Amino acid sequence: MQQQIKENGSGKFGTFRNIGVVGRHGNAAILTTIQQVISHLGEKGYHLIVEHSIADDLPPIGVQTAELRKLGQMCDLIIVVGGDGCLLGAARAVAKSGVPLVGVNRGRLGFLTDIKPSQLTAKLDDILSGSYIIEPHFLLDCQVKRAGKVVAEADALNDVVVHPGKAVQMIEFELYIEGQFVYSQRSDGLIVSTPTGSTAYSLSAGGAIMHPSLDAIAVVPMYPHTLSSRPIVVSGTSEIKIIMGQFRAAEPQVSCDGQSGVSLETNDVIYVRQKPHKLQLIHPVEHDFYESCRSKLGWGKKLT
Amino acid sequence: MQQQIKENGSGKFGTFRNIGVVGRHGNAAILTTIQQVISHLGEKGYHLIVEHSIADDLPPIGVQTAELRKLGQMCDLIIVVGGDGCLLGAARAVAKSGVPLVGVNRGRLGFLTDIKPSQLTAKLDDILSGSYIIEPHFLLDCQVKRAGKVVAEADALNDVVVHPGKAVQMIEFELYIEGQFVYSQRSDGLIVSTPTGSTAYSLSAGGAIMHPSLDAIAVVPMYPHTLSSRPIVVSGTSEIKIIMGQFRAAEPQVSCDGQSGVSLETNDVIYVRQKPHKLQLIHPVEHDFYESCRSKLGWGKKLT
Amino acid sequence: MQQQIKENGSGKFGTFRNIGVVGRHGNAAILTTIQQVISHLGEKGYHLIVEHSIADDLPPIGVQTAELRKLGQMCDLIIVVGGDGCLLGAARAVAKSGVPLVGVNRGRLGFLTDIKPSQLTAKLDDILSGSYIIEPHFLLDCQVKRAGKVVAEADALNDVVVHPGKAVQMIEFELYIEGQFVYSQRSDGLIVSTPTGSTAYSLSAGGAIMHPSLDAIAVVPMYPHTLSSRPIVVSGTSEIKIIMGQFRAAEPQVSCDGQSGVSLETNDVIYVRQKPHKLQLIHPVEHDFYESCRSKLGWGKKLT
Amino acid sequence: MQQQIKENGSGKFGTFRNIGVVGRHGNAAILTTIQQVISHLGEKGYHLIVEHSIADDLPPIGVQTAELRKLGQMCDLIIVVGGDGCLLGAARAVAKSGVPLVGVNRGRLGFLTDIKPSQLTAKLDDILSGSYIIEPHFLLDCQVKRAGKVVAEADALNDVVVHPGKAVQMIEFELYIEGQFVYSQRSDGLIVSTPTGSTAYSLSAGGAIMHPSLDAIAVVPMYPHTLSSRPIVVSGTSEIKIIMGQFRAAEPQVSCDGQSGVSLETNDVIYVRQKPHKLQLIHPVEHDFYESCRSKLGWGKKLT
Repeated sequence: MQQQIKENGSGKFGTFRNIGVVGRHGNAAILTTIQQVISHLGEKGYHLIVEHSIADDLPPIGVQTAELRKLGQMCDLIIVVGGDGCLLGAARAVAKSGVPLVGVNRGRLGFLTDIKPSQLTAKLDDILSGSYIIEPHFLLDCQVKRAGKVVAEADALNDVVVHPGKAVQMIEFELYIEGQFVYSQRSDGLIVSTPTGSTAYSLSAGGAIMHPSLDAIAVVPMYPHTLSSRPIVVSGTSEIKIIMGQFRAAEPQVSCDGQSGVSLETNDVIYVRQKPHKLQLIHPVEHDFYESCRSKLGWGKKLT
Repeated sequence: MQQQIKENGSGKFGTFRNIGVVGRHGNAAILTTIQQVISHLGEKGYHLIVEHSIADDLPPIGVQTAELRKLGQMCDLIIVVGGDGCLLGAARAVAKSGVPLVGVNRGRLGFLTDIKPSQLTAKLDDILSGSYIIEPHFLLDCQVKRAGKVVAEADALNDVVVHPGKAVQMIEFELYIEGQFVYSQRSDGLIVSTPTGSTAYSLSAGGAIMHPSLDAIAVVPMYPHTLSSRPIVVSGTSEIKIIMGQFRAAEPQVSCDGQSGVSLETNDVIYVRQKPHKLQLIHPVEHDFYESCRSKLGWGKKLT
Repeated sequence: MQQQIKENGSGKFGTFRNIGVVGRHGNAAILTTIQQVISHLGEKGYHLIVEHSIADDLPPIGVQTAELRKLGQMCDLIIVVGGDGCLLGAARAVAKSGVPLVGVNRGRLGFLTDIKPSQLTAKLDDILSGSYIIEPHFLLDCQVKRAGKVVAEADALNDVVVHPGKAVQMIEFELYIEGQFVYSQRSDGLIVSTPTGSTAYSLSAGGAIMHPSLDAIAVVPMYPHTLSSRPIVVSGTSEIKIIMGQFRAAEPQVSCDGQSGVSLETNDVIYVRQKPHKLQLIHPVEHDFYESCRSKLGWGKKLT
Repeated sequence: MQQQIKENGSGKFGTFRNIGVVGRHGNAAILTTIQQVISHLGEKGYHLIVEHSIADDLPPIGVQTAELRKLGQMCDLIIVVGGDGCLLGAARAVAKSGVPLVGVNRGRLGFLTDIKPSQLTAKLDDILSGSYIIEPHFLLDCQVKRAGKVVAEADALNDVVVHPGKAVQMIEFELYIEGQFVYSQRSDGLIVSTPTGSTAYSLSAGGAIMHPSLDAIAVVPMYPHTLSSRPIVVSGTSEIKIIMGQFRAAEPQVSCDGQSGVSLETNDVIYVRQKPHKLQLIHPVEHDFYESCRSKLGWGKKLT
């Protein structure tokens, strides 16, 4: 596996000095946790930069603020407080800068955000002292071309989903992988998932779980009319191409990580490809992907 | 099984004299087939009543026209030309009257509309002479209550689907069957399907195929977050109740047979119950449900 | 639903006087629970008849013993201590007599055996005083014909499974329902399941959950080569017929409730039909099928 | 993708001179095709070496014969006539030698053996003239350790399956991947599949299709008791370890490519790892993996 453990040293990323803080809006528990982070790290003398919109929700505490997109250049580490959805957003915004992220879980699931608030200060101290696991996660670039011109582009850490916009409608499209025609399909849509996304929407849709270190992309049909259509897993370097067919009542869209989508027209071509940079996700040293699966999915413990 | 075969006689429904003709709009092939029906039956002296909007698409031929909803009272038999979707619409409109329907297939699939255009006149002659199979199909009544008052009501022959309105969103709801709490669920929605609908959307969603004669309702979760949620099949007389939970970006709706839906609010209660009357669907005598499955789903033929 | 609640009276079955006790062998916890049952009911003056092989495991206590098959005629009620598997065996043995069964759970799952040992005496007292739910469960009759003659016959409460005998082999067969040809199939086998069995092996194999009161049979293919083969649910009164095809390395068998199977040959015909009598299963009054599903399958609780 | 196309040249493997011929026994159509191969290539002056047991089925024709295992050292190319099962056997026997294989399809499916008998001579001529695609397929090594000692070892091109030996029994085991504990499971077994095997047994069991060029292994649970157990895809270099738990009526085994298995005992440890060498499979230049999927699985063709 590609995970690396660094203990008691300067770590791969050197010493963390400038630390960004990001959180999900409109949740009192998240604000409380953010204040704990700020107060704990402030006391220890770290330079904190708080994402500006969440700073507005906090009492005036005299810390520096910045836009999310700029945090990447300004920080050595970014702490994200919220659920996996919040971390997905931060990752898409700053992954390009190479700054590592660590997640404090204030959401429902937590494959990405695995520090519990109850362990907050102890785990942060370990990480800041250089004791952590780095887990790189690749992102997908999604590009929409209309009549040969790029009309939209977006990133995804979990998945790119082509869908009918309105629920319970159907779309029709052609799928190509590495330029090879795969199939045409009438269905509720198509999920193109990274290993990171394989424990999210793709899993509900019948996709296989992929280990975070696997360099692969899964293409998962959504309620296809052809019952023998199954998820396909291909190399992470593969180019996925989807050509939109005709539609009646649907208002087809492509969405990245469940964000509001880009509207699609007949003959639009969607390209999905691995991005050159990766999200550098930091976990406490005891992090264990399969333990997350066991606890979240109810898998069996060791036999006695 | 509840199917009945009537041959060479007046049949269960007596002699067919007044015959309605219904079709899907905007399709030249369908219009051609409708004209064949009208000309063939006109020559034989049957009294024809053409659904008025499709009559507008035809050259003036001097036949009586009527609204779809009124055809039920006026006719002894209604011929539907189109796909299963077209027959679903006609069935919802006229089932209450008890008039039997027969479908001529001009669509993609054809579990309901099984007369091929190439066999049109021969099969119609057989049926009109009293040689046919009657297959009753129950419908569902879907009622939405808000603060105790009914705010919407609709019928379904295939399925009632509660969904987030916008694709790739999530809804949360509680399910009750016969007043018993079953589960709360976070998912893409819920399909409540009749046996008729079990070879349609429910099948794509992992539901079991139910024989048309079975008196049962299937409740099929759509991409549930809890991976152990599975389709449930209960007695056809069961009352299904769904209480809508809170939602963020979703615009939840309930749709009958894929028609444009009714908007839902938090705490809305959706009741789904069997209707007292049934669609009386007529098939040629050689109709065979499992043969339809084999040809449409690619199941294996007899071993030699 | 067909459940009946009887409270504080003589109940459907009149007064319980002669009470059978059955248990699974070779388990100390089960023996302890059986001794509690015997001692508690003995003190209350009930006439106890202990299944003779389990009696051999107990210290000599001077109670009457009898063979399992004879308990049905001798008792007004039979208490089964063990898991669902143990209750399945007792049910097949005595269901014909009409005697009701109640299960004390000492196994892993417990859809059928739902009295916890910790609640043993209180729940038994309630039931013996006439306060209980009766849940009838139909059984299947499985008959194997070779060259027109019956060569084997057995009962099933959960399921009849046709399989290759040796794992990871394949069989080929034709399926008929109500005399109608359904499909030929190459697969790992076929599960014919009652509603009772729908939460057992059939569920692991992708079958739908059927409410215990539903009069239906599910036919669930096991790893079929044709990916579009799906579970089929038909009326409980349907005759299921399976004709065995040729095989190479397989040693095909048919098994009832997972018991050791009957060997099959090419052209053998297996008939599966509902038996005329039903198992009368007794539950404490607070029994709730969906609650069992929620706790065993991890379904969501009520929204607050 | 890792496929290479060589046209009109000496190809990656130089000039083919010594050509092995292998086929499945006991099938007249296969013998006929083998005779065509021998006669066609004999006339062209190639040196043919026929697998000795199939040679016994042929009329005496004076060609050299050899054991399957020795063909690898003696040949530049081996032609396999039969189904995918036959090619799997030949591949396991000779893959270590690095000799390329090409399959002539005389079986049911043909993901591996894709030359149709009707195109036999034209396609062979193309390949022998250097015009072909090479598709490398990795194999798995399966090793069984008992009390620390290796008691059995075998190869698989499709899959390693741990199963209960007798159908409709259950086994219990612990799964480890790269030394990390994944889960304990009670199920019908576990399939460890290569990309090559992902269109075979693994596909029936709900596994994803993996492109032949993907360096990954899928671990697919068979009818697990925990409904949330799903297929897992990991890097092809991962070590899969399975520790057998206790069992009652089962007679657990591990099987490679569906061959008769090795008996297992409680606490046996099964290691599955990628082998250092790969099968070099040759296809005609127009070979297209997705076209095979479309024709065998009924996927949709191009939209107009």
